[in-house]
Amino acid sequence: METVGRHVISELWGCDFDKLNDMDYIEKTFVDAALKSGAEVREVAFHKFAPQGVSGVVIISESHLTIHSFPEHGYASIDVYTCGELDPNISADYIATALNAQTRETIELPRGMGPVQVNKAKAL
Amino acid sequence: METVGRHVISELWGCDFDKLNDMDYIEKTFVDAALKSGAEVREVAFHKFAPQGVSGVVIISESHLTIHSFPEHGYASIDVYTCGELDPNISADYIATALNAQTRETIELPRGMGPVQVNKAKAL
Repeated sequence: METVGRHVISELWGCDFDKLNDMDYIEKTFVDAALKSGAEVREVAFHKFAPQGVSGVVIISESHLTIHSFPEHGYASIDVYTCGELDPNISADYIATALNAQTRETIELPRGMGPVQVNKAKAL
Repeated sequence: METVGRHVISELWGCDFDKLNDMDYIEKTFVDAALKSGAEVREVAFHKFAPQGVSGVVIISESHLTIHSFPEHGYASIDVYTCGELDPNISADYIATALNAQTRETIELPRGMGPVQVNKAKAL
């Protein structure tokens, strides 16, 4: 298993309160999002908070998808971290659409690239 | 529940093969790391891969800790995402020490800060 991975972080704002507070809907959305990008689902764990809010993770062969929702703020923090040939943006897009996000800010970080190497410049 | 969180990403290299491949050890380390930073553990899910490797997550009230280990490469990708007053670096440090990482690269990202606002400059 190669170590290189792509880690997409999405900040979603203006999402539907009801969707952000529906654990079953979020769990189904996340499993579907993982399958859509071609990932193999290994573990699923979701937790419902009182008075509102859902946290959850789908562990895939290639890494994970997570969510922490704050329905009262319309906010959901999303992480989609994949390895191999998978494109995490496929899952991230699917999730943002499913939660009806009005604003979405996304960054992508490489993972497992190896420690930073400082190489001597060749003399010209 | 406030949305603001601190997300620490640690890339650990040169870790012990046996530690990276020991699911029970990693699970205990992660639960301890969460408790050390003052977090409340809500869900725990770990998965052992063949021929080697462990993936896992600890969902806390304030967010999550995750690991994906690649024992044959001595590499572990670590995420410690906390909300509220917790310091994710306490957990991240504990984990790096427990896995005996030789090299560690860490960044910290703010989460839940709100969508980027563009404000008009006041006329002088």
